[in-house]
Amino acid sequence: MSHSTTHQPSSSAPVHSTMMPAQLLITEILERARLLYREREIVSMLPVGRNEQGQPIAGRHSTTYGEVAQRALQLASALQAAGVQKGQRVATLAVNSYRHLEAYLGIPAMGGVLHTVNIRLHPQQIAWIINHAADKVLLIDNMFAAMIPVLQVACPTLEKIVVLGPLPQAIAGTEDYDAWLAQYEPLAQYPDLLETDAAGMCYTSGTTGNPKAVVYSHRSTILHSLTSAPRDALNVSQTDTVLPIVPMFHVNAWGLPYTCAMYGSRLVFSGPFNDGASLAALMQKEQVVITAGVPTIWMGLLQELDRAKAAGTPYQLPLERLVCGGAAAPESLIRAFYEHHQLKVVHAWGMTETHPLGTSSIRPADVPEGSDEYFQLSAKQGIPVPLVQLELIGEQGEVLPHDGKTMGQLLVRGPWVTQSYYGEDAADSFVTLNGQNWFVTGDIATLDERGFMHIEDRSKDLIKSGGEWISSVDMENELMAHPSILLAAVIAVSDPKWDERPLAVVRLKDDVQPPTHAELTDFLASKFAKWWLPDAYEFVDDIPIGSTGKFLKRELREKYKDYKMERKESKP
Amino acid sequence: MSHSTTHQPSSSAPVHSTMMPAQLLITEILERARLLYREREIVSMLPVGRNEQGQPIAGRHSTTYGEVAQRALQLASALQAAGVQKGQRVATLAVNSYRHLEAYLGIPAMGGVLHTVNIRLHPQQIAWIINHAADKVLLIDNMFAAMIPVLQVACPTLEKIVVLGPLPQAIAGTEDYDAWLAQYEPLAQYPDLLETDAAGMCYTSGTTGNPKAVVYSHRSTILHSLTSAPRDALNVSQTDTVLPIVPMFHVNAWGLPYTCAMYGSRLVFSGPFNDGASLAALMQKEQVVITAGVPTIWMGLLQELDRAKAAGTPYQLPLERLVCGGAAAPESLIRAFYEHHQLKVVHAWGMTETHPLGTSSIRPADVPEGSDEYFQLSAKQGIPVPLVQLELIGEQGEVLPHDGKTMGQLLVRGPWVTQSYYGEDAADSFVTLNGQNWFVTGDIATLDERGFMHIEDRSKDLIKSGGEWISSVDMENELMAHPSILLAAVIAVSDPKWDERPLAVVRLKDDVQPPTHAELTDFLASKFAKWWLPDAYEFVDDIPIGSTGKFLKRELREKYKDYKMERKESKP
Repeated sequence: MSHSTTHQPSSSAPVHSTMMPAQLLITEILERARLLYREREIVSMLPVGRNEQGQPIAGRHSTTYGEVAQRALQLASALQAAGVQKGQRVATLAVNSYRHLEAYLGIPAMGGVLHTVNIRLHPQQIAWIINHAADKVLLIDNMFAAMIPVLQVACPTLEKIVVLGPLPQAIAGTEDYDAWLAQYEPLAQYPDLLETDAAGMCYTSGTTGNPKAVVYSHRSTILHSLTSAPRDALNVSQTDTVLPIVPMFHVNAWGLPYTCAMYGSRLVFSGPFNDGASLAALMQKEQVVITAGVPTIWMGLLQELDRAKAAGTPYQLPLERLVCGGAAAPESLIRAFYEHHQLKVVHAWGMTETHPLGTSSIRPADVPEGSDEYFQLSAKQGIPVPLVQLELIGEQGEVLPHDGKTMGQLLVRGPWVTQSYYGEDAADSFVTLNGQNWFVTGDIATLDERGFMHIEDRSKDLIKSGGEWISSVDMENELMAHPSILLAAVIAVSDPKWDERPLAVVRLKDDVQPPTHAELTDFLASKFAKWWLPDAYEFVDDIPIGSTGKFLKRELREKYKDYKMERKESKP
Repeated sequence: MSHSTTHQPSSSAPVHSTMMPAQLLITEILERARLLYREREIVSMLPVGRNEQGQPIAGRHSTTYGEVAQRALQLASALQAAGVQKGQRVATLAVNSYRHLEAYLGIPAMGGVLHTVNIRLHPQQIAWIINHAADKVLLIDNMFAAMIPVLQVACPTLEKIVVLGPLPQAIAGTEDYDAWLAQYEPLAQYPDLLETDAAGMCYTSGTTGNPKAVVYSHRSTILHSLTSAPRDALNVSQTDTVLPIVPMFHVNAWGLPYTCAMYGSRLVFSGPFNDGASLAALMQKEQVVITAGVPTIWMGLLQELDRAKAAGTPYQLPLERLVCGGAAAPESLIRAFYEHHQLKVVHAWGMTETHPLGTSSIRPADVPEGSDEYFQLSAKQGIPVPLVQLELIGEQGEVLPHDGKTMGQLLVRGPWVTQSYYGEDAADSFVTLNGQNWFVTGDIATLDERGFMHIEDRSKDLIKSGGEWISSVDMENELMAHPSILLAAVIAVSDPKWDERPLAVVRLKDDVQPPTHAELTDFLASKFAKWWLPDAYEFVDDIPIGSTGKFLKRELREKYKDYKMERKESKP
């Protein structure tokens, strides 16, 4: 062998990577759907009319990744023709369906920014968000058509409104989506895109103050999809059927539309039909293997599975896992699924600001399935997925120990974590630690020795009693394990001696007698220090829940702000 | 709600991503091993002596990711102290073991470039490669210590040689690895690294001409690990035990050391003990779930499993899959594992130039396991993993149809595919197509309608007969399914009429009679066109196999270059 004449080796000269600078782009997902998974099915439950009670009736629609990819490319052409330029926003107001998936793929493919708007907000809030984002085009489901006249008046930046699905009668100034697409050939050539280009925009739920927006990039979306797929995260594969119940207007349905299209999973969209009975029947009929949603969805599903089992007609579900996020699932719920129905709930944690996948709670190999430790770990939010880092800090900004006990403000960083809010100065939400930028989550959490994170509370919901912290979430989950209690929210009320003390607001199950204060104190006493226990219980007909399924504690605190405790426990 | 005063919405102004510019670095993998998987076991089979025949005796060594991470950080400090700067090369000459894993993690963590050298090469070739890379430090297994005096003379850039594992007697001018590490504290602070910085260097096997090098980056390594983990690729999880039989000196053991450390899989290293009986016993004892190697390894394993089953003492193996790469596995081998032992072989394809993972052959959901189509697809190399693109071109550079029949030069591109060779001008290996840069693999392949790629041959091994191509690989694999044949290599010999014609070089199994030419022609006739069939069969005692387990066809062509066919088939 001989050296080539051009090569002058020196051990001190650094070598440089010879890898291609190939960009991480959502067009890669679209091309996979188009080329590799074109015959793979996508099922959507669409409202096809209304019954006598005015409830929507479900119709089953079936298409393929190949058709969705072609139509996404037609959408890309149509948006180009409508004058949408790179970085401009196209909003969606839609439930989960194949048309919404076309928007997920087609808008970023032509350089636009997919802005998914939360349909559960008040029309005034929706208009505020559309104006703040300065959306240029709006794609809106036919079932929300009643909102269109309001938005036409309130949102001057909207140049085009396109209605997804048929309407009994056209609305002036709007287009029918299918007819609009039919006018355009599929996009023949993708524009030049960089992986750092904007691809998606999401607003936080805004339970405190105005909603704030984060902007995802092509890169963050691709990395998030790659990290979501493994078994230790969401377990997405070409082989299986996936039902993302979490809405596509809520942090991109935890990225599942992209991850499933990247891997060619058979997709089932439940549209607006998300009660326990509809979901159980759909999962059985479509042989769903992976599904994802918030705890309130799983409570509804569990009731239906319990009912059917008790009636001697249990469902036969091939579910490998129910991914739970958005709020902490009570350990009792996780146990009930496992012990009554042999179904596994896998906890994940994230936020709008984290795309959202931050952690997942997978059983460590040395913890036997079904053991007490298994359930305790399953009720934690889990370990960070690769490339995500977590840290805990105290009130002075000091780094706290990872001992599973010390509560602190949870920090997160990583390639799909935001470093700012769009158009807002929110310096409080970010800190620098060891020269690195971290997002301040607003969650109070612990980290244990094996890296499992557990959310104790939102920092604003913590109860500060006598200079110490009481976490509301654990107590709520324990109360909801009581046989008579359906929902429980624990909030701070002001107290002249201890500063704040806990009040439990409780909604009982139907047809049960309220337990006494002493019974509830006994029920909680084995799990919590005595001074943590609620000083009072208020039984109510309902607890307000926000657009993303969380208790609206701000409203409860407002309602009970002058509450006088009938009885005081002395602090030990 | 009100707009903040700083926000001036306009629908024409592009928005920009708000995501953190967090870098994709191998230090993320090291930190996960250190923090999240610190008690997870790593088993290494190490040579602890020699028996009377001079064969190494295996000893079982057990450590943890926590210890390996700490020692990797000590190695990083030691390399800093030795003056290794960012981008400088640290070579390894080592089999698979925990010490080699420490090098994988520790060298890139301090900015060095991990250069894994193929131990199966001749010492002169090894010296050539070390000189070409201008390596500054060499980590070498004790079992290769005999080579050290040669390298000390031949490799002037080597400033330090460190021996992994104990020696009966120290060699002048070398250090003992464990004693060296013990002098240093773990690295306290990582250097500033960019994801595009060089992290690893590999030389091609050089079956034609001098070996050529590619340089992997931190980014390419992280993306490769993320893409390797899902079920549709290598199925790596924290829950399972993984045995990478493919050597760590061969394209980073297909990235498994990094992927397993990223996900905390229990790792088993077989060291130099890779015969069928050793591997079967190890897999049973250590309860291996995922393993990866080349077809020759699987042939050895299959023989041992068949033997044990016939003897009434079958192994009990919890294997979920055997990943097969490096060369095409015969369909007969895949069938035999499945039908005799209920074990699944999953084909993957890649090259040194692709890090290596390019494709994996996972059963599509609509193909029943165990069906004929399942085995046919399993013997293909599969569909590209996300972010990898494949294309086929003809001799004029024209793009060829993806019809499962048309053979063409296989092109590949993606974020972990090389765009050049280190220090070499090799413009022939790259083409521009539609404005994008592609690597010319040198493989002749087909792509079918569902995206499955099938390697037909190396372009240099194709047989050009009467202006048409005959693929040697399929015919070899079919011949190796014959009950009397152990190995078969099909090569071109020159022919005055047809330009080239196929000659089959065959090694029979022990104690069998050679089949006649007519028998073999009948055996192949149902699978191939008549004009593809070998004009002659040569029975030999052995077929030369190169350092990466492939037939050395160059040597065969040289040996048979003046071969005269005894008999000619007329071309139809």
